[in-house]
Amino acid sequence: MSKNLTKRSEDYSKWYNELVVKADLAENSAVRGCMVIKPYGYAIWEKMQAELDRKFKETGHQNAYFPLFVPKSLFEAEEKNAEGFAKECAVVTHYRLKTDPEDASKLIVDPKAKLEEELIVRPTSEAIIWNTYKGWVQSYRDLPILINQWANVVRWEMRTRLFLRTAEFLWQEGHTAHETRQEAIAETEQMNNVYADFAENFMAIPVIKGRKTESERFAGAEDTYCIEALMQDGKALQAGTSHFLGQNFAKAFDVKFTSKEGKLDYVWATSWGVSTRLMGALIMTHSDDNGLVLPPNLAPIQVVIVPIYKGEEQLNQISEVADELVNELRGKGISVKFDNRDTHRPGAKFAQYELQGVPLRIAIGPKDLEKGTVELARRDTLSKQFVNKDEVVDTIGSLLEEIQKSLHEKATQFRDDHITEVSSFDEFKEVLESKGGFISAHWDGTVETEQKIKELTKATIRCIPFDAKEENGSCVYSGKPSKERVLFAKAY
Amino acid sequence: MSKNLTKRSEDYSKWYNELVVKADLAENSAVRGCMVIKPYGYAIWEKMQAELDRKFKETGHQNAYFPLFVPKSLFEAEEKNAEGFAKECAVVTHYRLKTDPEDASKLIVDPKAKLEEELIVRPTSEAIIWNTYKGWVQSYRDLPILINQWANVVRWEMRTRLFLRTAEFLWQEGHTAHETRQEAIAETEQMNNVYADFAENFMAIPVIKGRKTESERFAGAEDTYCIEALMQDGKALQAGTSHFLGQNFAKAFDVKFTSKEGKLDYVWATSWGVSTRLMGALIMTHSDDNGLVLPPNLAPIQVVIVPIYKGEEQLNQISEVADELVNELRGKGISVKFDNRDTHRPGAKFAQYELQGVPLRIAIGPKDLEKGTVELARRDTLSKQFVNKDEVVDTIGSLLEEIQKSLHEKATQFRDDHITEVSSFDEFKEVLESKGGFISAHWDGTVETEQKIKELTKATIRCIPFDAKEENGSCVYSGKPSKERVLFAKAY
Repeated sequence: MSKNLTKRSEDYSKWYNELVVKADLAENSAVRGCMVIKPYGYAIWEKMQAELDRKFKETGHQNAYFPLFVPKSLFEAEEKNAEGFAKECAVVTHYRLKTDPEDASKLIVDPKAKLEEELIVRPTSEAIIWNTYKGWVQSYRDLPILINQWANVVRWEMRTRLFLRTAEFLWQEGHTAHETRQEAIAETEQMNNVYADFAENFMAIPVIKGRKTESERFAGAEDTYCIEALMQDGKALQAGTSHFLGQNFAKAFDVKFTSKEGKLDYVWATSWGVSTRLMGALIMTHSDDNGLVLPPNLAPIQVVIVPIYKGEEQLNQISEVADELVNELRGKGISVKFDNRDTHRPGAKFAQYELQGVPLRIAIGPKDLEKGTVELARRDTLSKQFVNKDEVVDTIGSLLEEIQKSLHEKATQFRDDHITEVSSFDEFKEVLESKGGFISAHWDGTVETEQKIKELTKATIRCIPFDAKEENGSCVYSGKPSKERVLFAKAY
Repeated sequence: MSKNLTKRSEDYSKWYNELVVKADLAENSAVRGCMVIKPYGYAIWEKMQAELDRKFKETGHQNAYFPLFVPKSLFEAEEKNAEGFAKECAVVTHYRLKTDPEDASKLIVDPKAKLEEELIVRPTSEAIIWNTYKGWVQSYRDLPILINQWANVVRWEMRTRLFLRTAEFLWQEGHTAHETRQEAIAETEQMNNVYADFAENFMAIPVIKGRKTESERFAGAEDTYCIEALMQDGKALQAGTSHFLGQNFAKAFDVKFTSKEGKLDYVWATSWGVSTRLMGALIMTHSDDNGLVLPPNLAPIQVVIVPIYKGEEQLNQISEVADELVNELRGKGISVKFDNRDTHRPGAKFAQYELQGVPLRIAIGPKDLEKGTVELARRDTLSKQFVNKDEVVDTIGSLLEEIQKSLHEKATQFRDDHITEVSSFDEFKEVLESKGGFISAHWDGTVETEQKIKELTKATIRCIPFDAKEENGSCVYSGKPSKERVLFAKAY
């Protein structure tokens, strides 16, 4: 495994692409736009899944599973949804292949096996789910419905990048139904907060919570809340969204309930999701020119032990110390690997674990045996220290906590340094080009201005932050009055 | 929720279909042959997943994720695989819908967006995975590859039944690559044993381990091992398979490695899987005319507490006792629900939990408060007892273990009572019709005889049991010599 990565300062995009492949996270497949998530990458995703799933259940949600396919007519039922997603999608038209009569080694689509109605591979599941909820809801006793689904979805993207934008990706999608508008809004907020808490405290990624403008909103939603993160190249990345859908889907699929007072009304809906895109956010928040940097919470291997030895006897002596350490660390719930492969030299192992972002590396050599020490190296700071063998387990416990905290602080510092308040459009453009990041600016609230700024600068309104303070100002582009600043950025 | 299920003795098939829907496990969807797995059913599947996943990781496997789609040409590469699966499948031919120019409320497939090569929704992933492994394997250092995938797959089944046979289903598929034939065979055996252990000790389902005959084998496999279970209606159900694929896929996809000795050779492969079909096996092994019966290991709710009260004061007093119980039981890792809904009467709650197979039910009424007791009811035996409040936690702990054990014993007894050795074809047919179950009979080892018996009786060879003892006999159909008995049965 070569560790010669392109430097971020040279070509950030190339650095990212190389890192994903070289750190064994994912690779492109034989299917255009679809990725293979390799075991090491998938192990990180599993850690995200486990923590999110715990949080969803803690807030009263249950998992379920709905069909992969959506009949075309269900998309037609919800016009806005169709506009938003159903256009660029994988369409199943036939259900059989047969041997080519002209060449028995070939398979052809059997023209007799044409579906009466085409099936769409789900780009999102609102349509199939709301069509199902219709049969589940009669009265207020059936509400709320609090369901999440872990699934694969497909959107026919033309320009794809591993994790960031792929034709097929993995995600979770929550779909809830409520008696009242207020309850649905509270759910939308709660789940956006769950995502923010997860990003900050589990992934060490600082995020800004806010709402989307009308033009950036999910088609079919009345309001879209989001968490926005900032990558090291100054571009923003939407890390999660939570939608208040009003009664749009209930009306499209005729989902009504009888209230406690005996009144018939449409139910209120939310949906919310995060995807394997978070892997991209993780990589571009913490990693460096030497490879991946992982917060300990997400590291499949938190500590690796590499023996430095000549001959079997030395290896045996080192193994004794290492095995003891492994047991003690595992006993504390720390994941540890003792890499005693004799097919690779220590230097190659060091390079591999650095590239793969293992938070702590222990090296044990003959001199350490003599002195009763080990060498302990931190991946994030690349600093090393010798630690007494008896203290190493405690040291590792506190170091893992410190690394988790320090990565969050570092990323927060970077993010905060890259929020710039501007008061003119020239300043807007200058900051965007020279520094990037979030640009905090007054906006007149119109779609026209938003579109014009996008055309001129490629920056979009990432969100109207929830914590924006009221402040009279004038729109950075039109000069019209504005009551609060919004955050612009170029984005993934 | 009505608990009036059709009786098993009246119509077993109808009983099954009703139970799946009424116990809230799954339902049919708007997509032909695809099911919705409802939260209660999915929670049981999640328990299976968690335990299997633990066992896979314990035996050195890692999870990964491969694309949903398989380009048609990859199926052509492995001819036998194509014969077996690639025929009845969902075929993606287009990647875009557009608004119908003649009716803006309709969507039509955009004829300009035709794929150059059709994509098949995976019916199984050997083709796409072996095409990927090709890039991963150069030398013996890259072996073994021990990977599992949790995924959805699609096979265009014409006659579908919830969980047992659906167009889309959920499963796991292990795909491994090895240096030697022996190592691959050992893996095939190991995984079949993992499945058997899981079925017996976690699902309380007794299974027979064996190998498939040539005609029942997975297309493309050299040998298929399986675990076979017996349902209450005397029909067998294949609960898991583990395939030794030889070098077939390595040859089809040109996956070679350099051995330690510097020799170039094709790698050896296995694949193994279980699916949501196990839900069907679970239901048809343990449940009764009153509904689902769940082994405690698989019960999303192991204990339910139902208050019997008049007025708020009584409810408050009962809640005090119940809350304390809930805390104590949770502290012991037992999942418990206190159902204090005021929208349903106790009788309706009792019926619901009986139907849904909650292993233990506690009822607490005013008399119990006086006496310091609770009423404890077992779902499997429908027996009740009064237990002193102070002893109830311990009693529940041992009862849950007892129920798990007792369900396994009961099912094993039933299965053993339904293995019948026969020595003539008349006896074979008579037993098959009158009693069903496994018929242990001598077979001459030819495909012709196997097919003929199938035509005449609908019974197939479920497996050649691993523990079959050598025994000279003559084929029950042809009279030709045979060295061991095989197991025939009608099967799901």
